[in-house]
Amino acid sequence: MNITEKILAKGANKKTVNPGEIIEVDVDLAMSHDGTSPPTINTFKKISDKVWDPDKIVIICDHTVPPNTIGSAEFHKVTRKFAREQGIKKYFNHGEGICHQVLPEFGFIKPGSIVVGADSHTCTHGAFGAFATGMGATDMAFVFATGKTWFRVPEAFKINVEGKLGKYITAKDVILNIIGEIGTFGATYKTLEFQGSTIEQMDVSGRMTMCNMAIESGAKNGIMEPNKAILQYLQDRNVKSFDVVKSDKDYVYEKEYEFQVDDMEPQIACPHNVDNVENISKVEGKTINQAFIGSCTNGRLEDLVQAGEVLKGKKVHEDVRLIIIPASAEIYRQALHNGLIDTFMDSGAIICNPGCGPCLGGHMGVLGSKEVCIATTNRNFLGRMGDPESEVFLANPAVVAVSAIYGEIKDPRG
Amino acid sequence: MNITEKILAKGANKKTVNPGEIIEVDVDLAMSHDGTSPPTINTFKKISDKVWDPDKIVIICDHTVPPNTIGSAEFHKVTRKFAREQGIKKYFNHGEGICHQVLPEFGFIKPGSIVVGADSHTCTHGAFGAFATGMGATDMAFVFATGKTWFRVPEAFKINVEGKLGKYITAKDVILNIIGEIGTFGATYKTLEFQGSTIEQMDVSGRMTMCNMAIESGAKNGIMEPNKAILQYLQDRNVKSFDVVKSDKDYVYEKEYEFQVDDMEPQIACPHNVDNVENISKVEGKTINQAFIGSCTNGRLEDLVQAGEVLKGKKVHEDVRLIIIPASAEIYRQALHNGLIDTFMDSGAIICNPGCGPCLGGHMGVLGSKEVCIATTNRNFLGRMGDPESEVFLANPAVVAVSAIYGEIKDPRG
Repeated sequence: MNITEKILAKGANKKTVNPGEIIEVDVDLAMSHDGTSPPTINTFKKISDKVWDPDKIVIICDHTVPPNTIGSAEFHKVTRKFAREQGIKKYFNHGEGICHQVLPEFGFIKPGSIVVGADSHTCTHGAFGAFATGMGATDMAFVFATGKTWFRVPEAFKINVEGKLGKYITAKDVILNIIGEIGTFGATYKTLEFQGSTIEQMDVSGRMTMCNMAIESGAKNGIMEPNKAILQYLQDRNVKSFDVVKSDKDYVYEKEYEFQVDDMEPQIACPHNVDNVENISKVEGKTINQAFIGSCTNGRLEDLVQAGEVLKGKKVHEDVRLIIIPASAEIYRQALHNGLIDTFMDSGAIICNPGCGPCLGGHMGVLGSKEVCIATTNRNFLGRMGDPESEVFLANPAVVAVSAIYGEIKDPRG
Repeated sequence: MNITEKILAKGANKKTVNPGEIIEVDVDLAMSHDGTSPPTINTFKKISDKVWDPDKIVIICDHTVPPNTIGSAEFHKVTRKFAREQGIKKYFNHGEGICHQVLPEFGFIKPGSIVVGADSHTCTHGAFGAFATGMGATDMAFVFATGKTWFRVPEAFKINVEGKLGKYITAKDVILNIIGEIGTFGATYKTLEFQGSTIEQMDVSGRMTMCNMAIESGAKNGIMEPNKAILQYLQDRNVKSFDVVKSDKDYVYEKEYEFQVDDMEPQIACPHNVDNVENISKVEGKTINQAFIGSCTNGRLEDLVQAGEVLKGKKVHEDVRLIIIPASAEIYRQALHNGLIDTFMDSGAIICNPGCGPCLGGHMGVLGSKEVCIATTNRNFLGRMGDPESEVFLANPAVVAVSAIYGEIKDPRG
């Protein structure tokens, strides 16, 4: 079996599982946020009055923090009331950050576990060797009530990545390159299992970026065998008693892809699909109005450090708003203590409180008509960040930072 | 003549002016923000194609930064285009902060000058001995085109304040006390001239807080003779060639009020009017859901320092969101360097980017139905910060901070 199958088999209390099989599993951790908790709770109340295990549920307000509308304030109220009623202690509503970042930071993610979240980018936690996937509010209500859910065991694609990343070439470029190749629907309901020397060497932040975007190829989950960096991260957060699960060496994948990253250029996903990926040289010179560094994809310290290298001593173009949002309060404070926030403010960037920010067009950087944004986020769908006539280009943090300085899409390698 | 009359007479190029007289004056500085610039520009375009003096116009985006809706993004676009077309160099759209804070920080406010702003709290600059008042977009369009405007010379009220402010009793309490006494409509179109030993000793921040809220009694402007603190502030910012104007000793005011602050309690403006002011002892124990420290009224370093003293080592109540927004980028960085941001984040506060924030119910802390907010802001009108069934209490920063810890309105003096 592969990693995913082994984790699912254990969750289903079976010796083996096979692709295509429908199984019921015990969930180790369930998460919902301020956007998805209210519909989850609505449905939950029709089928139960007590959650299966309050210690295995995390509710985080991150999508619009602080509330940007009366409706959003009502949503926050609903989450708080539910958490208190149900004795859910893992409740976060003080700007702790984006759910997918906060879960591992607080030591809630364990290799070998089954994590479900009422958010499509829950697949982020595959970076830790967990089976992690997003689901809708109705399914999540069932999990809240029973601790169980069903899956069709996904077929697996092996994504082998070899080579060394050059200066200002990052995990973001690797995953954009992969999605450009596979296509937005190319891995629908498949497991993307990332392997190879590049993945083996990759830091925690980069691994999270890659697994985070697995969903952009339609995948059920993205997953990686934990490496030394991951094990160190878990030790630093005192995470204990977990299973490092590995795929069988002789496992036969439905498809295998090979990627060589040695000579890769920075990659850009152009409007209006994530698989519309080009080498940066194809789109350099495109005028931008907004630049955004943040999100569950690229709002980590390593991302901010790269942006800081580029922005140090430089000024944001007078016609561009550069918005920088650390993915969590922990990252914000690291950035504060190591001088990055200073660097960003010197440059003329706007630093907002940790959370999802403008990624989904809710607040803190909504685009007007014909405005163009370059962002480190994960989706560039038509109207995603504002007006249907706006455009979003996806890139790595160094590309976004240098583009903010020049007012046009630019290669940070000069 | 009084200070205001002397400034207006000079602006009208007359030897004397009298209350009730209609005069036309030359404007020294005109300001509009992201909310009021677009209607100003619309009207301006009907009467002119070139502003009278681009160096005397300041345009600042502060009300919704970064844009919170497509409409707000369009407004920002309009301001930028106009500033570029007209050669307005004093254009701020990189999160520099709230207009009324940014103007003096950048050295634009001079004692003895006439400042008009398309925002009601423009009266803040009376703290510097300037005649400063708010006006609507139509009037502002005329200023943009001609550099002139008309006023009816206001009658003057003398507000004499004596005594020493106790611990955690601030300029905010003084002005709330005054408005409680005078009433929301009690000084309509009057000049409030603040005098007395308390005003003489007051720091720049406190003086700005008091003049800022002059409008809440209906006043045309609030004004103070510059004191040592003001002159030092101006010197620190290299502001030169201005007139320190004083009222004639024998000037006869339309009304005179006397306030004694020695034994004053913290003052609270209760829903839904600013003049509904009570001693804190009358409202202690009221449950709150949100606490906000910021705004042009109380978002300065001195305010944050007071909040920091209270919050140090304490945790925000689990059911309260505490939002802290420095009034400007300069203040934000001072708070960052002196450890206040750390203190705030330790406590569980959410720190947003400089700007107006939730003060006017636009974003970053909108209230849901029946939610109660205690805020350092200037207005608590029905629905001002969100749902028409929400409530806003106005107080000083220490009161707001301690209330955030306890989850109910509380006296910081213990």
